[in-house]
Amino acid sequence: MRNKIDIRLFIETSLPGDGFITLEQDQSHYLANVMRLKAGAGLALFNGKDGEWAAEISDIKKRAVTVRITERVKEQIEEPDVWLVFAPIKKARIDFIAQKATELGVGHLYPVYTRRTIVDRVKTERLHANAVEAAEQCERLTVPTVAEPGKLDKLLDNWPEDRRIMFCDEDLSGKSAHEALAILSNATNEPWAIIIGPEGGFDENERNRIKSMPQTTVVSLGPRVLRADTAAMAALTLWQSAVGDW
Amino acid sequence: MRNKIDIRLFIETSLPGDGFITLEQDQSHYLANVMRLKAGAGLALFNGKDGEWAAEISDIKKRAVTVRITERVKEQIEEPDVWLVFAPIKKARIDFIAQKATELGVGHLYPVYTRRTIVDRVKTERLHANAVEAAEQCERLTVPTVAEPGKLDKLLDNWPEDRRIMFCDEDLSGKSAHEALAILSNATNEPWAIIIGPEGGFDENERNRIKSMPQTTVVSLGPRVLRADTAAMAALTLWQSAVGDW
Repeated sequence: MRNKIDIRLFIETSLPGDGFITLEQDQSHYLANVMRLKAGAGLALFNGKDGEWAAEISDIKKRAVTVRITERVKEQIEEPDVWLVFAPIKKARIDFIAQKATELGVGHLYPVYTRRTIVDRVKTERLHANAVEAAEQCERLTVPTVAEPGKLDKLLDNWPEDRRIMFCDEDLSGKSAHEALAILSNATNEPWAIIIGPEGGFDENERNRIKSMPQTTVVSLGPRVLRADTAAMAALTLWQSAVGDW
Repeated sequence: MRNKIDIRLFIETSLPGDGFITLEQDQSHYLANVMRLKAGAGLALFNGKDGEWAAEISDIKKRAVTVRITERVKEQIEEPDVWLVFAPIKKARIDFIAQKATELGVGHLYPVYTRRTIVDRVKTERLHANAVEAAEQCERLTVPTVAEPGKLDKLLDNWPEDRRIMFCDEDLSGKSAHEALAILSNATNEPWAIIIGPEGGFDENERNRIKSMPQTTVVSLGPRVLRADTAAMAALTLWQSAVGDW
């Protein structure tokens, strides 16, 4: 909601490097042809580890824009360690999950196949591209990582012992959001994951398995039926308010 | 996230009426041609005041489907009294606000023109249509009402004395979400409104005016820049967990 006049770009190279960076083709095209910037124009760069740097365009060609790095404007900060484990859903709404979860500060996007998952192909590059764009716009200093999709059962087989689970169940058996947040807020220094079901809900075996894990806190998201993408956003919001950096 | 095999339709007439209802053209088309239902198929109807009723198709024509009302399956319940006051944004994302806010249990959608509002035409019928569709899908028994858009200043001039305000400010001056929720949860029986700024943020005068109102609690939505639609969803989620029915 803040005014965003500045252009921020996520790059894969180290900063400040030797002080000059030639941007990759897509980003060069964006600056030269879409934004029509000229030499001397300012922008900001971040790479997820070296903070945010101011830069100035020193040379502009249609497919190769070179910038001079001027100064560090923000120190790198660590972001909350929270995964979002979700079942793939249709195209527009999976883009939406990647974008909104990034804005809401997710650390890692983990698509999983459940027994009732309908969409069976996940383009992780597409999730990554959506996360990059959202990170550039929301002034994050990192881009969430994206896991290769795998089966939920396999993920649970190898679940890290110390990573707590906020499980948003659809059968209303969980604690009310208000009560659950009090429990969550006692574990602010631990790694977390939020697990959200597919549109048709978890299979009974899957649900019972997640519920029985010692890491799990079951949280109700109220009496209305939420779509999977809405549930993901609501869960991340509650998590941020109780455990994260809000 | 629960399994939704049932068709639920919102209608404007009273229930159960005389026991038979002929649905309007769009809904008849949907049942007859899109869902290809036959006589005898079941569905559910609600109108926002008489609870939810089971019905069975008794006669089916392409543009006029008649149903027989069988029994009440849910009593009407009152939903939380919370307004969402928001500045209009571009088409797809204003549809999104109407849909998601409905899922998240908003009572009343209030589009307002602020000094920095860019989109200046709001189609209230379109907001209503989105709200109806979302209410049908999320098993709500009501559809949020939609106000005719007006100027923010005018709305504040006539602000109801007893309606509290959760103001999600972009300048990070508010209480942390966690602290603010504790304050909010002391006012669960009062009418509320959530006020969300336009994409460019509120003008300084607008912001100060809202902040100085005795009804206002300022709530921070964390260190990242949220888009207006994301902020609206996050704010409603927090409100539901602290004040509403979650």
